[in-house]
Amino acid sequence: MRASKVLSTEKIPVSNVLSLGSEVEHGGNIYRLAEELNIPESKVIDFSASINPLGVSEKVKAGIKNELQNLHNYPDPDTKKLNEKIAQYHNIDSGIILCSNGSTELICLIPRALKPGTVLIPSPAFSEYERACRTAGYELRVISYELKEENNFDINPDKFIKTMERIRKNNPAAVCMTYLCNPNNPTGRLLRRAGVRKIADAAKKIKCYLVVDEAFIDFHPEESVIKDVQNNPYLIVLRSMTKFYALTGLRIGYGVFSRSLIEELKKLKEPWTVNSLGQKAAIAALEDDEYADKTFRLIKSEKEFLQDSFKETGIKFYPSDANFYLLKINNNSLTCLKLRKKGILVRDCSNFKGLDSSYIRIAVRSRRENKILIKALKHASNEL
Amino acid sequence: MRASKVLSTEKIPVSNVLSLGSEVEHGGNIYRLAEELNIPESKVIDFSASINPLGVSEKVKAGIKNELQNLHNYPDPDTKKLNEKIAQYHNIDSGIILCSNGSTELICLIPRALKPGTVLIPSPAFSEYERACRTAGYELRVISYELKEENNFDINPDKFIKTMERIRKNNPAAVCMTYLCNPNNPTGRLLRRAGVRKIADAAKKIKCYLVVDEAFIDFHPEESVIKDVQNNPYLIVLRSMTKFYALTGLRIGYGVFSRSLIEELKKLKEPWTVNSLGQKAAIAALEDDEYADKTFRLIKSEKEFLQDSFKETGIKFYPSDANFYLLKINNNSLTCLKLRKKGILVRDCSNFKGLDSSYIRIAVRSRRENKILIKALKHASNEL
Repeated sequence: MRASKVLSTEKIPVSNVLSLGSEVEHGGNIYRLAEELNIPESKVIDFSASINPLGVSEKVKAGIKNELQNLHNYPDPDTKKLNEKIAQYHNIDSGIILCSNGSTELICLIPRALKPGTVLIPSPAFSEYERACRTAGYELRVISYELKEENNFDINPDKFIKTMERIRKNNPAAVCMTYLCNPNNPTGRLLRRAGVRKIADAAKKIKCYLVVDEAFIDFHPEESVIKDVQNNPYLIVLRSMTKFYALTGLRIGYGVFSRSLIEELKKLKEPWTVNSLGQKAAIAALEDDEYADKTFRLIKSEKEFLQDSFKETGIKFYPSDANFYLLKINNNSLTCLKLRKKGILVRDCSNFKGLDSSYIRIAVRSRRENKILIKALKHASNEL
Repeated sequence: MRASKVLSTEKIPVSNVLSLGSEVEHGGNIYRLAEELNIPESKVIDFSASINPLGVSEKVKAGIKNELQNLHNYPDPDTKKLNEKIAQYHNIDSGIILCSNGSTELICLIPRALKPGTVLIPSPAFSEYERACRTAGYELRVISYELKEENNFDINPDKFIKTMERIRKNNPAAVCMTYLCNPNNPTGRLLRRAGVRKIADAAKKIKCYLVVDEAFIDFHPEESVIKDVQNNPYLIVLRSMTKFYALTGLRIGYGVFSRSLIEELKKLKEPWTVNSLGQKAAIAALEDDEYADKTFRLIKSEKEFLQDSFKETGIKFYPSDANFYLLKINNNSLTCLKLRKKGILVRDCSNFKGLDSSYIRIAVRSRRENKILIKALKHASNEL
């Protein structure tokens, strides 16, 4: 077993893990709201999950229908054709790609495989990073790197590197790991490629694994560090196809790793987690340039509309490089409740470490829906 | 952390785990063979995966097509409607059901959640049980319970109970667990309900978890112990919908547990592992009585045909209660190779613990395909 030195201050005993987890609420549970209001699920307007408002491309749907004839076969456990398509899309080697049941499968698998003794996680960030560490089945230390509201929750690469270096110095024998969500969820803030590279170079130098989660980077592909993985065995890049391509229901994600890390992960990975319709859908999605172009245009225009509306109605927002916004409001749980009653779901951010009860996250949706949201938010704040 | 006393004789150090796993080969990899022979995947005749030869029901396909409009939504993480349908199907409480990405997800999750110190596994049996134990991330002891060829690989409940009791006595502080695959894979042999109940009662008495994997019990539903779970907190029953219903590509399985165990598992379970098309497909499948009836008739008639053919051609088989047969032949790897060249995949059983190079497993398929197999097996054995 690899060394995993435990410092007493923040160690997470396995027994405590069991008080976490099942109560973690993410966005996207339209099913409970539909039941609550006794309306069909299709009537819920879901701003809580940051999914492409165009829905799934028609070409992808056609691809899925065509694949139904093969549904009795096991999915290809090697996801060979999908790997080749992803490799071609990013111009990288297909052998360093590992596909997964959403990127969540890899987020959970990585700490189990690497067994880090200490993990550095910015806060706020996607809550599954910490949950994955806490449920990895052994004791490890999670250190939070606080992102400050006065800096728009931006990360400072130099300070982040210093924190990594300090952790490495204090735990020379342990495996060291850090997550970086870029653009960050729930803030939407992007660290530009030069900054990420600086952190990745430092991580390589001090031998600390850096997991860059690029689930929302599709709107700024030029800022991705996916091509850098081949020259940096300590860099891991995760991507998701559940957001930009709206393959949310079919669960497609992937990670790019050094070859040796892929082998380590495969030893623990469950077989057949990537279903066969998802594999075909993802291939069709990556081939559909028209859908991507339409998405860029739509999101750009709707973000302009939303920002103008936020300014007009005095709603505090943080400039975002993703297809969602973090908003600062009074009493988020009451606001969420008022919106729920109208069939509108937004993400209450109270359970993001580092955020208090002043924040909600909302997705960028269609003009019609965005107008409904702005109106409802205005009403809700007037009533408070 | 729960106690997990390690006995030196058979303990599995975590470091050794990494020599296992990625090389584990199951049936069903039609993709590699299609590539090898440069033929379309649809031309491979796959006897290696024991899937319903009727393929996916047309009603299920229609249900999937209808659900494509909602594909941009997250799957219901609680799989509420599917749980209700399964509960109705078995006449059990929906709150004790946990759906999963094939039953494999639960096979892997159970040892991580229960942390058994010792696990008793019959051999031969489905290899994922042992792999799940070896990749659970901590040291545990796996004890094999040898099934003997001279008894048709049948399990003797009294002897099995004695072994469980001995393990419990030797490790009074550790969590004790055992797997029972019924009908067993790869032998097809069924232990009738009275026998399973005897083992389950003993397991309850000595507080040893008994995981009964009923992935292939659909052909003998009256022998299932699924209803017994509500009165036995040490009994776990796993079911698969990837075989009988051919939902292989969509990955649907479920487990039935005591309520407290479900809560333990949920704390470690990844969210959204059961994709939304799979949820809808499974509901439609459980409603399609006509498909089930047709399946029973087809499999019954094809099993008669295959048994007659085995007898006629002198192929040694073991009477089976599932939709597959274990065959004893000379030189299985050479036979598999000869069949592969003809585009026929069968399951080489060499990597099942407890079986040597004399065994292959073949699925029950359509008359046309079964005839091709028998002919090919005859040729292969004549050439040896």
